[in-house]
Amino acid sequence: MQDLPAALPGYGPLRATRIRAAQTDRRRGKLLESIRAAIEACDLRDGATVSFHHHLRDGDGVLNLVMAALAQRGLKDLHVAATSIFPVHAPLLEHIASGTVSRISASFISGPVGAAISRGALDLPVVLRTHGGRARAIAHDELKIDAAFVAAPAADALGNLSGRSGRTACGTLGYPLTDVMSAEHVVAVTDTLVPFPAAAIDIPQDRVDHVVLVDSIGDPAGIASGTTRPAEDPGSRAIGAQAAAVIAASGLLKDGFAFQTGAGGISLATAAEVGRAMAARGVTGSFCAGGITGFHVEMLRAGLFRGLMDVQCFDLEAVRSYQSDPRHQAMSAAVYAGPHVGGAVVDRIDAVVLGAAEVDLGFNVNVTTRAGGEIIGGSGGHADTAAGSRLAIITTRLTAAGFAKIVPRVGTLTTPGETVDVIVTDGGIAVNPRREELAGQLRAAGLPVVGIEDLAARAAAAASRPVPPRAEGRVVAVSEYRDGSVTDVVRQVGSPAHR
Amino acid sequence: MQDLPAALPGYGPLRATRIRAAQTDRRRGKLLESIRAAIEACDLRDGATVSFHHHLRDGDGVLNLVMAALAQRGLKDLHVAATSIFPVHAPLLEHIASGTVSRISASFISGPVGAAISRGALDLPVVLRTHGGRARAIAHDELKIDAAFVAAPAADALGNLSGRSGRTACGTLGYPLTDVMSAEHVVAVTDTLVPFPAAAIDIPQDRVDHVVLVDSIGDPAGIASGTTRPAEDPGSRAIGAQAAAVIAASGLLKDGFAFQTGAGGISLATAAEVGRAMAARGVTGSFCAGGITGFHVEMLRAGLFRGLMDVQCFDLEAVRSYQSDPRHQAMSAAVYAGPHVGGAVVDRIDAVVLGAAEVDLGFNVNVTTRAGGEIIGGSGGHADTAAGSRLAIITTRLTAAGFAKIVPRVGTLTTPGETVDVIVTDGGIAVNPRREELAGQLRAAGLPVVGIEDLAARAAAAASRPVPPRAEGRVVAVSEYRDGSVTDVVRQVGSPAHR
Repeated sequence: MQDLPAALPGYGPLRATRIRAAQTDRRRGKLLESIRAAIEACDLRDGATVSFHHHLRDGDGVLNLVMAALAQRGLKDLHVAATSIFPVHAPLLEHIASGTVSRISASFISGPVGAAISRGALDLPVVLRTHGGRARAIAHDELKIDAAFVAAPAADALGNLSGRSGRTACGTLGYPLTDVMSAEHVVAVTDTLVPFPAAAIDIPQDRVDHVVLVDSIGDPAGIASGTTRPAEDPGSRAIGAQAAAVIAASGLLKDGFAFQTGAGGISLATAAEVGRAMAARGVTGSFCAGGITGFHVEMLRAGLFRGLMDVQCFDLEAVRSYQSDPRHQAMSAAVYAGPHVGGAVVDRIDAVVLGAAEVDLGFNVNVTTRAGGEIIGGSGGHADTAAGSRLAIITTRLTAAGFAKIVPRVGTLTTPGETVDVIVTDGGIAVNPRREELAGQLRAAGLPVVGIEDLAARAAAAASRPVPPRAEGRVVAVSEYRDGSVTDVVRQVGSPAHR
Repeated sequence: MQDLPAALPGYGPLRATRIRAAQTDRRRGKLLESIRAAIEACDLRDGATVSFHHHLRDGDGVLNLVMAALAQRGLKDLHVAATSIFPVHAPLLEHIASGTVSRISASFISGPVGAAISRGALDLPVVLRTHGGRARAIAHDELKIDAAFVAAPAADALGNLSGRSGRTACGTLGYPLTDVMSAEHVVAVTDTLVPFPAAAIDIPQDRVDHVVLVDSIGDPAGIASGTTRPAEDPGSRAIGAQAAAVIAASGLLKDGFAFQTGAGGISLATAAEVGRAMAARGVTGSFCAGGITGFHVEMLRAGLFRGLMDVQCFDLEAVRSYQSDPRHQAMSAAVYAGPHVGGAVVDRIDAVVLGAAEVDLGFNVNVTTRAGGEIIGGSGGHADTAAGSRLAIITTRLTAAGFAKIVPRVGTLTTPGETVDVIVTDGGIAVNPRREELAGQLRAAGLPVVGIEDLAARAAAAASRPVPPRAEGRVVAVSEYRDGSVTDVVRQVGSPAHR
């Protein structure tokens, strides 16, 4: 070609361009014929960390497909770094038993896997991280992912992924959006291969290495797990009405109000009451965040909020809204809840309404274990939103299944009491002593403010079963806070033989 | 808090959670009161690399604002890593003269800065990279950016940026999308601060460190630089018609056809003819890529293509389309043209129509210097699309300003002839000898295929001025190929005193 100097000051050596006939490789795309081929292409070895996300929730088929292929390949000691594990993932127990899986980390674990871990199925402690803490751990290389497997409702051959099309459309892909930024390899698993370019793209092709077409990535009916409608029973509605009254009395309910609720019946009953109050006062909120339900979509359409910030669609109505309404925007787990991004969406929330398995006298909340110590969940975004929001409200009944839910000391500390402001129960409202001014506002509004000790006493009186003692077995799980510190450990209950 | 073991096997030491009252910082957002304050927050020092993008094209006000602030702060030896430099950026010459700027890299340089560089204004060679090569250099840490300055048509206080709203809406933000993934610090400069969350978000908040509000980020009228409509003159239309006939004869014009053209009059005249041929044959293409114009939008709306993949809107009609049509999608520079992403959008293009300052007997193309050697451009996406596409067509007249454009040897080799397939001129069509089968197809279609030597001879005969000799001064610029190898160097013409 041209006559080039060998080197230049301020530039260094010059390497002359040589054109290789490698274009065909680039054109071929990223399609592989099987998950097995993808495992080979990623060069996964014993001890590797493989990540999964839970947008298909209890309908997810991808984690099981991939783990079966990894087991078939004879891999051992794998680390399953999932965002959440559901009952549908029970086949993980076989892979634990066979030695294919020796480590698990997740933000939420429910169903048989949680029960088995609690009974000591794994020798190494499970690491439970908040959604924001998981994003931080990935970004800071504390959680190094060898291969991220993305359940893609639609994909093209170059690896553009869409959660908005395909027969298992699940909406936003907020959790893998974080994984694919740092994973060594990214494998998209799809049952809907579309012509290039996929539309609308949720994860762009430069973040995806391989695409595998399978028969089914899961059951779309499993996306909406449990109810995502406001509770109708009088007890739940009463708690919801009081939580909404707390928000109204707090002074936060004004233009620009930012709101998050879970998808549970009491949370959505609260949201319904808050929506009525906003409409009555002529308040236009800024956004609802979090997992988004059809109920949040209704509030958007009613003009109560300007937008939705959605890390995960909780039902198919939310999916349809994300497909068509530009005010309904996706966010990654890092943007949602990361403590490392200089201000996440959770840091802009005015009020969040959260649930609890237990609350204690220090306002600490347990959403990780049930009475007796068995793992039934984990923080998810609980600790993140409590820390970020101006007003963190916990709604709970005084008792459940005969056990007191307001207790001297939580079985597992998931969300530190320093970040919790108000407990709303069917036996009164307790305000964190840190928020004395707020307690005054609630009293002025005629709300039944009582001491947390009073709530605990009423709960104990109403309970038919004693609070079980803390388990004392070996540590089976570590509950990490958003910053990687440890809020608590979970200890073994019973033994593997008992499961 | 809880009683924690000091350490656990398989986990390591446990650090107990301590809640600090640092929430107010996170809530404050990322707003700083001035560019000066952002420079301080980024801790920029002498020798730092600052990056800019050119979506506001010749209407951009941000590069000049930031460079003035850096100069005022007394910083020296800065490296300006821009995507493109336009005439509006002439104030850079003062910063070069004062020693504030000692290095420049870019994908395209036009106007007074290019002229001054050619005359030796900088001691260190400018590095000219292709759009894809720049994305690769950033991803591979060859080009380390200390602070990326993003001209944001709209931003919220947490750093969500939108190119789709604000009074200087410019559409997609494809180039900074790549910079913000790797830059040490990211500063958004906006003239439209919107309530959180900005909509629609083009760059998410976790990629942005600081937001600065200024009076104006530029002149929206400058976005559409030059014509973005098909040429109307008979000479250009004839070349366009022949280029379209080449595409038709090549066999590529079938369902799924993927197309890119520049925004020049001949390119769009070609696109108009191709569109008519598609309509006549009932062909539905897959996508148009690249910088997108209102003319491409018309083709989308006419149903000739399923989608647009847009790294940069070339006019305001394209901006309006991107604001409202989900089939009109953004792509980053890496996705567009990166040679490092395992298949970029350019690798899926069937036919691309490109221009040339000069073409030589080896089918090499110069879009970097004018006759005589002065810098007037650079590859931009020229070399990327030529390499990726199945059919790279160069359209050019035989002469311009009295100089032959088909020459024995290009003044600067920008795009290697190995990646160029056809030269379409007003004096005939030359086909790269590598593509003998294609030459046969064109001849069979009755097109005037001639040898490249014939074209050069005709150009020489039609020229009124001799091809100037290659400049022999010191090297003022290095032209890098997509992979970081060097296609050519640009040497000094005249001396700084002559400018």
